[in-house]
Amino acid sequence: MARTVDVAGLVDRAREGQPRAVARLISLVEDAGPELRDVAAALAPHCGNARVVGLTGAPGVGKSTCTSALVKAYRERGERVGVLAVDPSSPFSGGALLGDRVRMGEHTTDPGVFIRSMATRGHLGGLSWATPQALRVLDAAGCDVVLVETVGVGQSEVEVVSLADTAVVLLAPGMGDGIQAAKAGVLEIADVFVVNKADRDGADQTARDLKHAISLGRREREGGLWRPPVVKAVASRGEGVHDVVDAVDAHHAWLVERGELARRRVVRAAREVEAIAVERLRSRFGGLRGGADLETLAESVVAGELDPYAAADRLVEGVGA
Amino acid sequence: MARTVDVAGLVDRAREGQPRAVARLISLVEDAGPELRDVAAALAPHCGNARVVGLTGAPGVGKSTCTSALVKAYRERGERVGVLAVDPSSPFSGGALLGDRVRMGEHTTDPGVFIRSMATRGHLGGLSWATPQALRVLDAAGCDVVLVETVGVGQSEVEVVSLADTAVVLLAPGMGDGIQAAKAGVLEIADVFVVNKADRDGADQTARDLKHAISLGRREREGGLWRPPVVKAVASRGEGVHDVVDAVDAHHAWLVERGELARRRVVRAAREVEAIAVERLRSRFGGLRGGADLETLAESVVAGELDPYAAADRLVEGVGA
Repeated sequence: MARTVDVAGLVDRAREGQPRAVARLISLVEDAGPELRDVAAALAPHCGNARVVGLTGAPGVGKSTCTSALVKAYRERGERVGVLAVDPSSPFSGGALLGDRVRMGEHTTDPGVFIRSMATRGHLGGLSWATPQALRVLDAAGCDVVLVETVGVGQSEVEVVSLADTAVVLLAPGMGDGIQAAKAGVLEIADVFVVNKADRDGADQTARDLKHAISLGRREREGGLWRPPVVKAVASRGEGVHDVVDAVDAHHAWLVERGELARRRVVRAAREVEAIAVERLRSRFGGLRGGADLETLAESVVAGELDPYAAADRLVEGVGA
Repeated sequence: MARTVDVAGLVDRAREGQPRAVARLISLVEDAGPELRDVAAALAPHCGNARVVGLTGAPGVGKSTCTSALVKAYRERGERVGVLAVDPSSPFSGGALLGDRVRMGEHTTDPGVFIRSMATRGHLGGLSWATPQALRVLDAAGCDVVLVETVGVGQSEVEVVSLADTAVVLLAPGMGDGIQAAKAGVLEIADVFVVNKADRDGADQTARDLKHAISLGRREREGGLWRPPVVKAVASRGEGVHDVVDAVDAHHAWLVERGELARRRVVRAAREVEAIAVERLRSRFGGLRGGADLETLAESVVAGELDPYAAADRLVEGVGA
């Protein structure tokens, strides 16, 4: 008895900038309901205009504050801004935990800003699957720039940010030295470094360490010649935020000039398509993790009767692939 | 012209505790070469004895130091200990970055300790796929306990730890308050909390905040009645480490008593089998990310001619699934 959703009408209203239409489309995407395919098809012709800026860094470096300050800066230029804040959620409850979207408060009534927290639902590939679809909604809705903020530093989170047009990595003095940054696996994906909370002791040292690490690190990323700038900021007071915007702009111009923007977007689309295809295949394993076949096979593995590869063979055979 | 590997002989030597045999088996697993299937089959009957303890927390909380201190404590009990340290690596270089395995220095010459850093290779599912296989090697090699340390806090990293028998989550004063812990998505997966660096200002406050958060959080995890203890430690001086060991032991006893240990291991095996099956299917997309078909489809997506779901349909059709 589901209501029929007027997808074309929703997309039209989203493109006019109606926040409720944008929110509804993202919900349809997140819920992966029957309208998902229609939504995706309706969005496709309208995508590709937004500049996608990823922000990441360890907990406590001030990502949300920095995101909020960037929103303000882009709004001052009259641009329409989207924010996707990815909250890791428990693999067990499936729900998003506390957030601090309150810091975004000043933008919630601005019709030129769309803010959305994404729960990752704790399932494998959740980030790679749902986040790009929500991004496409914001893109189609006419956002000039979409900020993708990932909370936490992990394999999936780093990957999401690395697939942005420009990846911004935040650090803070005392939060971690060069080795900590390297541990986070973010040195090589950063296009722009921000040393936030730069009014704290050790900010200059953190910036120096970072520059040193950059000079040592081989830049094997595409193009190979972009040297990520290190920008100091105090996002909570708005200091240095325009320098961050300038650095992001400079990187974007560099991407366009080199023809790298198109290449990077093909990589992003390929990962997106792949993630959807994997989810589709996985769903055939029998109700995701709950399938009786998978459970029976897992029990045999625990009993030492079957190794995991032999069990996977049977699972793949079982889906007729 | 690859040399034939005597897998059965390697497994025998690993079970005798020969470090080189253990290291070689993990390499065979990581490289996913032709011997992988034989290795998996040879290990299967010998797995299931090790207690698996996962450790995670934000960068800088002292995970490696705590892991090292735990190794020492377990060694004092005469147990054979394995350590899997998962280093997020760049999605672009594919290589592990800097580590701080140096802190493990004191254990590197101990024949009762096997330490291995795992690169995650930056590919989707890297953690879920390779880490459990390496764990099986250490398990079959007779480790009484295997510590799985994930550096960073992210969706995949949290998942790996959540699949351990006992998940230990580390925090440190000043590194993050209750909200930061919640952001990291770790509150609900923790079986034991450690407030490390407890000699620092704010340790009591952090412990109190945590206990408060625990009392608020619904424990919907299996069993439902385990209330994660909060242990204070200064791992660098060995203080409180035996309390951590006691808490881990208590949780393990609780799991056994409730019959939850077997259930948790079936869940872990199911995820493991599923991850292998997904990798197998993905490999049919045409050389992972590099396949011509995937790239052509991705170009159509970027051009707005195809939506990602339609592209995924064609990809799945292409593998005959």
